[in-house]
Amino acid sequence: MNTRRNSVVLSLSGGLDSTSLLLKYLSEGIAVHTLSFSYGQRHVKEIVCAQNVVKMLKGIGTLSHEIIDLSGLSKVFGESALTSNVPVPEGHYADESMKVTVVPFRNGVFLSLLTAYAQSLNIGRIAYAAHLGNHDIYPDCRLSFVIAMRKAIWLGGYMDNVPCLEAPFLRLSKIDVLRVGIEYCNTLGLDWKHVFASTWTCYKGEESACGKCGACIERLEAFEKLGHKDTIKYEHC
Amino acid sequence: MNTRRNSVVLSLSGGLDSTSLLLKYLSEGIAVHTLSFSYGQRHVKEIVCAQNVVKMLKGIGTLSHEIIDLSGLSKVFGESALTSNVPVPEGHYADESMKVTVVPFRNGVFLSLLTAYAQSLNIGRIAYAAHLGNHDIYPDCRLSFVIAMRKAIWLGGYMDNVPCLEAPFLRLSKIDVLRVGIEYCNTLGLDWKHVFASTWTCYKGEESACGKCGACIERLEAFEKLGHKDTIKYEHC
Repeated sequence: MNTRRNSVVLSLSGGLDSTSLLLKYLSEGIAVHTLSFSYGQRHVKEIVCAQNVVKMLKGIGTLSHEIIDLSGLSKVFGESALTSNVPVPEGHYADESMKVTVVPFRNGVFLSLLTAYAQSLNIGRIAYAAHLGNHDIYPDCRLSFVIAMRKAIWLGGYMDNVPCLEAPFLRLSKIDVLRVGIEYCNTLGLDWKHVFASTWTCYKGEESACGKCGACIERLEAFEKLGHKDTIKYEHC
Repeated sequence: MNTRRNSVVLSLSGGLDSTSLLLKYLSEGIAVHTLSFSYGQRHVKEIVCAQNVVKMLKGIGTLSHEIIDLSGLSKVFGESALTSNVPVPEGHYADESMKVTVVPFRNGVFLSLLTAYAQSLNIGRIAYAAHLGNHDIYPDCRLSFVIAMRKAIWLGGYMDNVPCLEAPFLRLSKIDVLRVGIEYCNTLGLDWKHVFASTWTCYKGEESACGKCGACIERLEAFEKLGHKDTIKYEHC
């Protein structure tokens, strides 16, 4: 068995998308080495969720998890609404107001770190859960960026030890990500309500999800359009 | 004046190459915002050197310096001879033995961080001091990588706020880097012996430079070929 190709390093935020991607790899029998990044996000709660997800899924495949402390990067990332006191805007991702939630080149930084980690472990694949819903606002979630970054990684790493970047959800909407996530749960014999109840999406990181930020709105829409009810707690429900 | 184009974010290791590049920009009247990365390197002494270089040059132009704590990345970078107890090999860069000094995708990570910082500050240029001497061993110092990474940055950042990656020393040998560094010192009215005495190149990070690792050998050769004597202290001289 080619262990380089049967293992992947995955960026696991603790949200619905990266959890679905983790489920996909596990359902394919791939060994998954996950990294969660603590970069000063106000919704740091998502990292606890990532830990809970990993705990829940650990028995069903080869799965590791490391939390990487990037608190030293506060100066680098500057004042995004996700990393400072700038208020988190309410409304849809496509709204102009959502631009303050951009953490500059965040996925460029994260993918570089996944690459370094994959090379250290001699693993042939790295992945993140960018999907269609992110495209409007986040340039580092678009196909053109994925292709360019894959090439940069290819050229910047040793050829005998270079990981290939993949983003299998790039052509899927948030609804589709949830749909396939539910399917992977079924394949693995897991209760999807239980699994997704352990994920965190809201940008605000309060006790309950706000239900009003771009991330919450998109998540709620996905559940609604599939005819399901989200199992996490919202502020006004 | 276009402040975006008249400012650059520069990776400043505290070595001879990045110091020469800093001198280049200062001699052109460019405002330079430098970042030094503390990533668990055994030659952490280079960061003190970077601080000394910045202190020395502060009066002659617009110059800022931030030290970014990446100590949380030890797991990500794994066991390079530069970041662990693996012994630093002696000999030339081109030697097979020098491969243990590779920190996987280090410049990919650093350039991603420069990009994030430049976007935070709304600065239009980022730079690092890759040169011909690095090419043999470090893939993330080659032209093909620079072009690919520039494109990834271009596509992953907001178009109205994306920095352009430059590596002006890419076609220069170490000898040429030292030669132009001396010229920039002369242009700026600085004593180059004094300036380069504050830089650090040795991978070992002891009290004196070892004179035997790839980095020392290349530095010593550059001084010798230009008919100069290096002004830092070596172990056996």
